[in-house]
Amino acid sequence: MDGTTHGPDDARMAAGPGEAVGRAVTRLEDPPLVRGRGLFAADVNFPRQIHMRVVRAELAHGLLRSVDATAARALPGVVAVWTSADVAEIPSIPFRATKVQGLEPYCQPVLARDRVRYVGEPIAAVFAEDAYLAEDAADLVAVDIEPLPAVLDAAAPPAEFAPGLHTEPTIVRKGFGDVDAAFAMAHAVIELDLSVGRHSGVPLETRGAIARYDAARDLLELHGAAKKQHWNRDEIARLLGRPPSSVHLFEGHVGGGFGVRGELYPEDLLACAAALRLDRPVKWIEDRRENFLATNHSRQQRHRIRAAVDAEGRLLAIDDVFFHDQGAYVRTHGARVVDLAAGMLPGPYRLPAYRVAGHFRLTNKTPAATYRAPGRYETTFVRERLMDAIATRLAIDPIELRRRNLVATAEMPYPRPLDVLGSDVVLDSGDYAKLLDQALDRFGWKALRESIAARRASGECVGAGLAFFVEKSGLGPSDGVRITVDHTGTVELVSGAASVGQGVDTVLAQICAEALGVGYSGIRVVRGRTDRIEFGNGAHASRVTVMSGSATWQAAQAVRAMALETAAPLLQLSPEVLTIRDGIVQRKDGATEPSMTLAEIARQMGPNSPAMRGRTPGLTAEKWFWSDHMTYPYGVHCALVCIDRGTGAVKVERYLVANDIGRAINPMLVEGQIAGGFAQGLGGALYEEFRYDETGQPLSTTFADYLIPTATEMPALDVLIAEDAPSPLNPLGIKGAGEGGTNAVGAAIAAAVDDALGQPGAVTTLPILPGTVMRLLDRAAP
Amino acid sequence: MDGTTHGPDDARMAAGPGEAVGRAVTRLEDPPLVRGRGLFAADVNFPRQIHMRVVRAELAHGLLRSVDATAARALPGVVAVWTSADVAEIPSIPFRATKVQGLEPYCQPVLARDRVRYVGEPIAAVFAEDAYLAEDAADLVAVDIEPLPAVLDAAAPPAEFAPGLHTEPTIVRKGFGDVDAAFAMAHAVIELDLSVGRHSGVPLETRGAIARYDAARDLLELHGAAKKQHWNRDEIARLLGRPPSSVHLFEGHVGGGFGVRGELYPEDLLACAAALRLDRPVKWIEDRRENFLATNHSRQQRHRIRAAVDAEGRLLAIDDVFFHDQGAYVRTHGARVVDLAAGMLPGPYRLPAYRVAGHFRLTNKTPAATYRAPGRYETTFVRERLMDAIATRLAIDPIELRRRNLVATAEMPYPRPLDVLGSDVVLDSGDYAKLLDQALDRFGWKALRESIAARRASGECVGAGLAFFVEKSGLGPSDGVRITVDHTGTVELVSGAASVGQGVDTVLAQICAEALGVGYSGIRVVRGRTDRIEFGNGAHASRVTVMSGSATWQAAQAVRAMALETAAPLLQLSPEVLTIRDGIVQRKDGATEPSMTLAEIARQMGPNSPAMRGRTPGLTAEKWFWSDHMTYPYGVHCALVCIDRGTGAVKVERYLVANDIGRAINPMLVEGQIAGGFAQGLGGALYEEFRYDETGQPLSTTFADYLIPTATEMPALDVLIAEDAPSPLNPLGIKGAGEGGTNAVGAAIAAAVDDALGQPGAVTTLPILPGTVMRLLDRAAP
Repeated sequence: MDGTTHGPDDARMAAGPGEAVGRAVTRLEDPPLVRGRGLFAADVNFPRQIHMRVVRAELAHGLLRSVDATAARALPGVVAVWTSADVAEIPSIPFRATKVQGLEPYCQPVLARDRVRYVGEPIAAVFAEDAYLAEDAADLVAVDIEPLPAVLDAAAPPAEFAPGLHTEPTIVRKGFGDVDAAFAMAHAVIELDLSVGRHSGVPLETRGAIARYDAARDLLELHGAAKKQHWNRDEIARLLGRPPSSVHLFEGHVGGGFGVRGELYPEDLLACAAALRLDRPVKWIEDRRENFLATNHSRQQRHRIRAAVDAEGRLLAIDDVFFHDQGAYVRTHGARVVDLAAGMLPGPYRLPAYRVAGHFRLTNKTPAATYRAPGRYETTFVRERLMDAIATRLAIDPIELRRRNLVATAEMPYPRPLDVLGSDVVLDSGDYAKLLDQALDRFGWKALRESIAARRASGECVGAGLAFFVEKSGLGPSDGVRITVDHTGTVELVSGAASVGQGVDTVLAQICAEALGVGYSGIRVVRGRTDRIEFGNGAHASRVTVMSGSATWQAAQAVRAMALETAAPLLQLSPEVLTIRDGIVQRKDGATEPSMTLAEIARQMGPNSPAMRGRTPGLTAEKWFWSDHMTYPYGVHCALVCIDRGTGAVKVERYLVANDIGRAINPMLVEGQIAGGFAQGLGGALYEEFRYDETGQPLSTTFADYLIPTATEMPALDVLIAEDAPSPLNPLGIKGAGEGGTNAVGAAIAAAVDDALGQPGAVTTLPILPGTVMRLLDRAAP
Repeated sequence: MDGTTHGPDDARMAAGPGEAVGRAVTRLEDPPLVRGRGLFAADVNFPRQIHMRVVRAELAHGLLRSVDATAARALPGVVAVWTSADVAEIPSIPFRATKVQGLEPYCQPVLARDRVRYVGEPIAAVFAEDAYLAEDAADLVAVDIEPLPAVLDAAAPPAEFAPGLHTEPTIVRKGFGDVDAAFAMAHAVIELDLSVGRHSGVPLETRGAIARYDAARDLLELHGAAKKQHWNRDEIARLLGRPPSSVHLFEGHVGGGFGVRGELYPEDLLACAAALRLDRPVKWIEDRRENFLATNHSRQQRHRIRAAVDAEGRLLAIDDVFFHDQGAYVRTHGARVVDLAAGMLPGPYRLPAYRVAGHFRLTNKTPAATYRAPGRYETTFVRERLMDAIATRLAIDPIELRRRNLVATAEMPYPRPLDVLGSDVVLDSGDYAKLLDQALDRFGWKALRESIAARRASGECVGAGLAFFVEKSGLGPSDGVRITVDHTGTVELVSGAASVGQGVDTVLAQICAEALGVGYSGIRVVRGRTDRIEFGNGAHASRVTVMSGSATWQAAQAVRAMALETAAPLLQLSPEVLTIRDGIVQRKDGATEPSMTLAEIARQMGPNSPAMRGRTPGLTAEKWFWSDHMTYPYGVHCALVCIDRGTGAVKVERYLVANDIGRAINPMLVEGQIAGGFAQGLGGALYEEFRYDETGQPLSTTFADYLIPTATEMPALDVLIAEDAPSPLNPLGIKGAGEGGTNAVGAAIAAAVDDALGQPGAVTTLPILPGTVMRLLDRAAP
């Protein structure tokens, strides 16, 4: 990875305004990780803990006739075996996001009741003295299922979904403008049938849940939490009939989240309920096969999309009907992916009319939910395929075609009569055309076309493609941060955010350091634990840096103002002439005297300081940042691929992600995000797919069958971080950087493969598997 | 126990104003305790923990020539053995209270350096895989000490204290008025030489320290904390060179505190340092012998006191010189007991002139500090002995004599030109004479005298005595409480207070319930952990109910006001017509509609509620109560004793504690406090004494030698809780109730023993041991 690397830098001593934000400082998170002192779920242990093993359905669909745990219960060392009757009082897991009326019956019970709906569905839970015993005992649980036909095609006719499945298929509709009129007057109509395969985040660390009940304090603790601790706390409390303040969730290190980890799953509730009822700490660590079967899948959609265009290739309307394969249950997201897909499909283009119908369909597969760039990876593929097809049909250069349709800077902020995640879509800022130029320049597009021509002449099957994307980030409405300076001058920042490895601590510390005038490395960032702050939103939707970062900025500014106000009279100076550098209040003009440290100020503001009489003591502030609208980062992906004519394997030789994120708090971390995101996009484009046989048996339950890209598959990745369009919606101009690396990979590689094959529109399905490529090569053969 | 028992009562459903405070509701603390789910220090365990054993000095005084840990280190399973060289960088434990210049060199190092100063002083620490191994290994540590003479008499001439001990004896002086003139003009001068023995709190649960370092979060945890968590956190952090926010202390259940538990001791620091350095959780549980040798002793003082009186027995002046036997080191209290003794000696009496010199003396015994009613148990004994002696000398009835000298209600608030704990003594309120009358009436004094006469006539050796005391409580300057109502309507109260078993949770919940209008039993009280609130004062000096209780009142009032303000516009009513009952905002006039629950209001005030834009969300308030002056509860103790002429044993037959505490939040808990406090006072009066032989070897290191009163020794105890003199210094009129049961026991029993023996002034020393009584009986024998 090269790119706009600012180079690792040490801002520990650099502590004045303007010296922390924007620098590629080393991560606060790393010391325990590089010293082998990470605390992943499996590292959490408590005395007297027992181990949970989940007995899972081995059929995709059937009536659950009986579950006989007699033999399992008789095994020495087995503490308990639970079936659905044992957890009958625990309601199904509700959805927290994008609630669609009518889906409630399809929420998942913690253990299957009368019917199993996918291979891997929890049927029973075994609790035993060790994990091996638990697994052995689970094998002794006799499950009798009467098989039923499995529904596996989300685009199948609705009749196939009854009985007992999804009897009232749900359709999410959005749109604006007169689509029918646009199609009626169109110069051309281009129609495609495109599919994205079923894949998902497969974190290095599988899920884990270690629940412990502290009877003395009446506290239920769940360790191994991630992503949405506060919401999960509230729901665990509600589902188990406890006050929220009697439940606390703790996030340790997280070995990859990607959207799938940290949702509320049946296993979390089982572990918590067992810790309460069996009065022993309960540990559950997901094995890899379970991770493939039980953790949220994502992506699988089929789009039948049509575009109406004028003679210059300008979009007049898009009409999209798509089928979202949700799997067997509606999980915590509700219909969020469908909502995102429908709302984000138009991307960066001016679009007068739009109609979309997203069919939310339940099938007999593992339930699906959000995975990095949810709904956007799919629809960027669909939209950009469509743009390429329009270009082909009208014989316009695909780059030129895009240029004609891009929303112009002068049109920003650009409201689009759509809503997504309950928020009106207003593209907040952007210079799309400029970034396109920069990307083409950076990728050396012109020279590349020449080099491709030369290589083709020598018989190579090479091609290049690009795709434009618009991301969304910074979902509101609010986020709060509390910053406290103690009597030693140490700064503690408490946030309800979570971290799934992306460097939240470092970024928040940099923002705090910048605003407060202290070194970033001494700041203690506390997050991922519900006992330290009343509210929190975790880490999702590329919102942490925007929302928690902006709240951090405000809280640090407030602490700064308090410090200056307290110090000024003691220094006999006006607050206006003072600043804070390296934790020392001093004159702005550079004079080192008089001065006062933050530690001294904090002591002045201590609980026994007469000055604090009638006030709340402490050099501390909690501030909340509010936002009505999301911010919209955007970017361009460029791919150069080479196809092996003998195997059909697609090799990505070079790749560029150009991404305007408004303001890069730490460019090194942004690059890391983009590189990791790209790898996941690459997996979905070429390798990763959860496949099922015709009975609904999963075929991808090991890394031998579910292929994730490795270092070998990673191309030379170039990252262009642009800051040309700061968001006007927050004080630092931040837009989220978590998903731009993933978003357009399928789209760009598809275009490059088309180009290499010399068959525009050839790629209609992701992943682009060698077999497909071989067939396309054969088709092209003379 | 009978008395003004209000009877256990259930206020769970009674939740309106006036229905929670003052009722004898059952304790919130009890469910885990009565179900065997208490969490005492020994119950805390962590995986991979190692056990610490402390090698202690076996000589009272000597030069430490060498410590050879070779054999101990070689024992399989021993992880480390530390001597002073291993902890050279850890400073001595500082004092937090009543700092006296010049005492700093006598603070205790965590391990003895060049000299040992008392039997039991830590010399080395052994860390091993289990507690038995650690103890075996400790036995293998070879300690070579060159013996030196031990100093054991605090009243010995100063020359005896050098060398290497306390070379500059410290004298705490207080006083007012012209003492010499008063003595010059006195009708009579009465002089006594009185001693109180060395005893202390011996909690059922010995101390414990379980330290754990969480490297992933860079958090050092200390479990088994008590009393002063926040101060101890700050000092542990400072002494170990860490930021305070990286250290957290956790109090579990505490099996008795009494002032001695929860101070910062060498073992706490050793466990913390080892957890950090050895990278294993470290568990230390004090054994009983260690508890006798290592935990703070208290009380031992000798007073040479003189009173100048007029012909009517009115006090003109008191002149006291006393010697406080501090033991070998100055611990966290500094010279607090001496300060308290000097400042509180005058008690309830009008005193024109006063001079006191408290000699703070270091001896080769276990260090001493505060123990329930510190300085007051001693000086009430001294002062009341003095009053009895004056009565005898002037042939005035001792009750009448007291009456003549009591400060009158009309004189309240009564400033006394003294300070104690850095705060000016102003007796805030009281009707001393009334309580004396009530006590005499309740005890049936007149009838009792007749019954005593009758019993004496039949040969019994019986007598009655009484003593008056003034306590102090509610030490300021400030205390804060945070109260939050969550979206389910559950109330959480977070306090920096600690609980050593006295029922803090219940009392704070009652006050919160009363102010807020909710049931007390659903309130979750969180305290005793430094991670939930930034500042705290723990539990000491009978201050929790006064200070934290008043802060609770204010915070709950603030939450109530917020709730009414939020609800009023939604209910289309003015806040003035609204009240809260059972957690429901409703009309004061009793109409049940319209209404709104606190849960609904909290949801209205949630972080995503548009109404909270620009505000800090949450139905929550943190309030701080400030106080410049202490409150002064007071009381009368009456004792009836019967002496066994054959053994000299004193049996207390009946006992009354009459105590005006301003306002009893929960009379049942106050009675419990008084009963427990009385038992400890009884121990000090008749049974408990740490004795040493002439070389400084302790003779009382088991319960066979150190006698604590059991149920057999407990008399029929009557408790009269008076609320005639609410404190004007806080909103509920509260005065502390923690120490009044202890304060005057020695004094009252001494008077009763005198009376039984028919020898006024015979008792000059506590405890009143059978041998002494036998000698007195012999002296009286014809």
